[in-house]
Amino acid sequence: MRAAVLHAAHDVRFEERPEPKIVHPTDAIIRISATCVCGSDLWPYRGVQPVTEPSPMGHEYCGVVEEVGREVKSIKPGQFVIGSFFASDNTCPICRSGYQSSCQHAEFVGGAQAPMLRVPLADGTLVATHGVPSAEMVPSLLATSDVLGTGWFAADAANVKPGKTVAVVGDGAVGLLGVLAAKQMGAERIIAVSRHEARQKLARRFGASDVVTERGDEGIARIKDMTGGLGADCVLECVGTQESMKQAIGSARKGGYVSYVGVPHGVQLDGQSLFFAHVHLHGGPAPVRRFLPKLIELVLNGKIDPGRVFDLTLPLAQVAEGYRAMDERRAIKTLLQP
Amino acid sequence: MRAAVLHAAHDVRFEERPEPKIVHPTDAIIRISATCVCGSDLWPYRGVQPVTEPSPMGHEYCGVVEEVGREVKSIKPGQFVIGSFFASDNTCPICRSGYQSSCQHAEFVGGAQAPMLRVPLADGTLVATHGVPSAEMVPSLLATSDVLGTGWFAADAANVKPGKTVAVVGDGAVGLLGVLAAKQMGAERIIAVSRHEARQKLARRFGASDVVTERGDEGIARIKDMTGGLGADCVLECVGTQESMKQAIGSARKGGYVSYVGVPHGVQLDGQSLFFAHVHLHGGPAPVRRFLPKLIELVLNGKIDPGRVFDLTLPLAQVAEGYRAMDERRAIKTLLQP
Repeated sequence: MRAAVLHAAHDVRFEERPEPKIVHPTDAIIRISATCVCGSDLWPYRGVQPVTEPSPMGHEYCGVVEEVGREVKSIKPGQFVIGSFFASDNTCPICRSGYQSSCQHAEFVGGAQAPMLRVPLADGTLVATHGVPSAEMVPSLLATSDVLGTGWFAADAANVKPGKTVAVVGDGAVGLLGVLAAKQMGAERIIAVSRHEARQKLARRFGASDVVTERGDEGIARIKDMTGGLGADCVLECVGTQESMKQAIGSARKGGYVSYVGVPHGVQLDGQSLFFAHVHLHGGPAPVRRFLPKLIELVLNGKIDPGRVFDLTLPLAQVAEGYRAMDERRAIKTLLQP
Repeated sequence: MRAAVLHAAHDVRFEERPEPKIVHPTDAIIRISATCVCGSDLWPYRGVQPVTEPSPMGHEYCGVVEEVGREVKSIKPGQFVIGSFFASDNTCPICRSGYQSSCQHAEFVGGAQAPMLRVPLADGTLVATHGVPSAEMVPSLLATSDVLGTGWFAADAANVKPGKTVAVVGDGAVGLLGVLAAKQMGAERIIAVSRHEARQKLARRFGASDVVTERGDEGIARIKDMTGGLGADCVLECVGTQESMKQAIGSARKGGYVSYVGVPHGVQLDGQSLFFAHVHLHGGPAPVRRFLPKLIELVLNGKIDPGRVFDLTLPLAQVAEGYRAMDERRAIKTLLQP
């Protein structure tokens, strides 16, 4: 088969790779219906994270089960399934407490920008739909696999509840779906931080009531101004840089909640500043599996349309252009069709 | 009057100071029944925090109201009162959400190691008891003013609940009262980190079920061992150093809670490590005022005896020895009688 492999910064190739096989009896092999490029794929693509060897890319996926290992009980060939980027047994104490991305047997699922994918711990990791969904449902179902699940975790970790004032720092796909999640959770006011018109528009469509274009200290001052000098109850940090983290913490009210869901790159938090900011801080790799059944249901019932974050759809063979478009911020998020 | 003034590292003097007067119409003047030396007083005493000018010391207090400003409504002369180290109006939105130590009008209350003290925002800050309590109640009531309130906040911020496994890093008075708080909140297992026999004994008396003497990575490994490889549900960091913070975060299970209540000194948190630790982190200056009414009630009903942390009682005139004894860890906490 041919699949996406990153060789060096800015060098993604669509090249021959061996087809995946069952390795462990708990594995499943799925035929990918759609996959996509993640904001986190841009870190190595941009050379911020070193590329030490050719790396099969992609960790967002949905598709049809081709084959299962002999110990797989609930997942069956022919089912349409969605899974997360961390395989999890969904039975260990950490999974049971809702932190499947830190499962005691967690395993990263890589190489999803391909026609076929091996998914470890299939019973714990994959969620099957009732029947095979229509093609127009696929983008929104694909979104649940990571980008919506991560935005949802951001809102959950920031304690979003009915009536709260929420600020979202970052207008990437995760931030935009953080807005959607906050709206679903009943937030009264949702302030999106964005200076990009198309993204502002999508943020408003997903439920943002206000848009702030300022960044850094000016962005903080603007949000304080809008909240009677207090700051937001809940702030979702959806970028992962020092600047965005600082803006997020500074935008929260005393006693408020800040979540962070992008892998931090070069972020150092000064203990004393954090202490006097008086915030709750929670984040980490989103335990998407916790939310998957609910998110799939919301999509299939037509309550949410997270697939709108895909503003570029390409055949998998054009994966390199998919990365370029996101790198240059010409696309919010690229969907790839094998 | 004569009161404690820090002139330089290791140089606390008991010297003449002007008696406090009503400055704002919302002030009260109280005659101190008992005060004490705080772990945080040791930072400047040890020279870790620079002493730029002679500083009146002390911020833990209880006593009898002498005089109130003309706008004070609920607090009356003759009442026995307890307050916190941050004066707060107890009516602003931040106070109403339980973060009185970050009140929009917060003001630090300093100079309590003295016979008389001015307390700003008296109505919001002070809590009066019914009648003047007996002398033997005074140490435990004094403890509610900061050290118990801070240990209580540590347990609350670490999400301690019935059935939880709790680890407490730090065997100072705050850590020991964090143990007491966790016990009151129904923790099933409480692991105290201490290598000091008298403190271990007090920790057990307050409710610790286990004691760990190892520090750093060994301490983390020990707590992981004791918790089936998972780590503790709730970890209270009650020191404020890089080492203790690292130990606290490393001792928590994925998805667990870490609180920190000592002003961090030289603490830097690496964003990526914190991300993958997957913990909830919350701390800051303890909003003692939130807990004061409940803590006073628990003391007066004889349910808790936090005053046991005072293992040295001295006349205020011997304040210098009180600091020395704590600095050299000969005393857990020094109570001072004006």
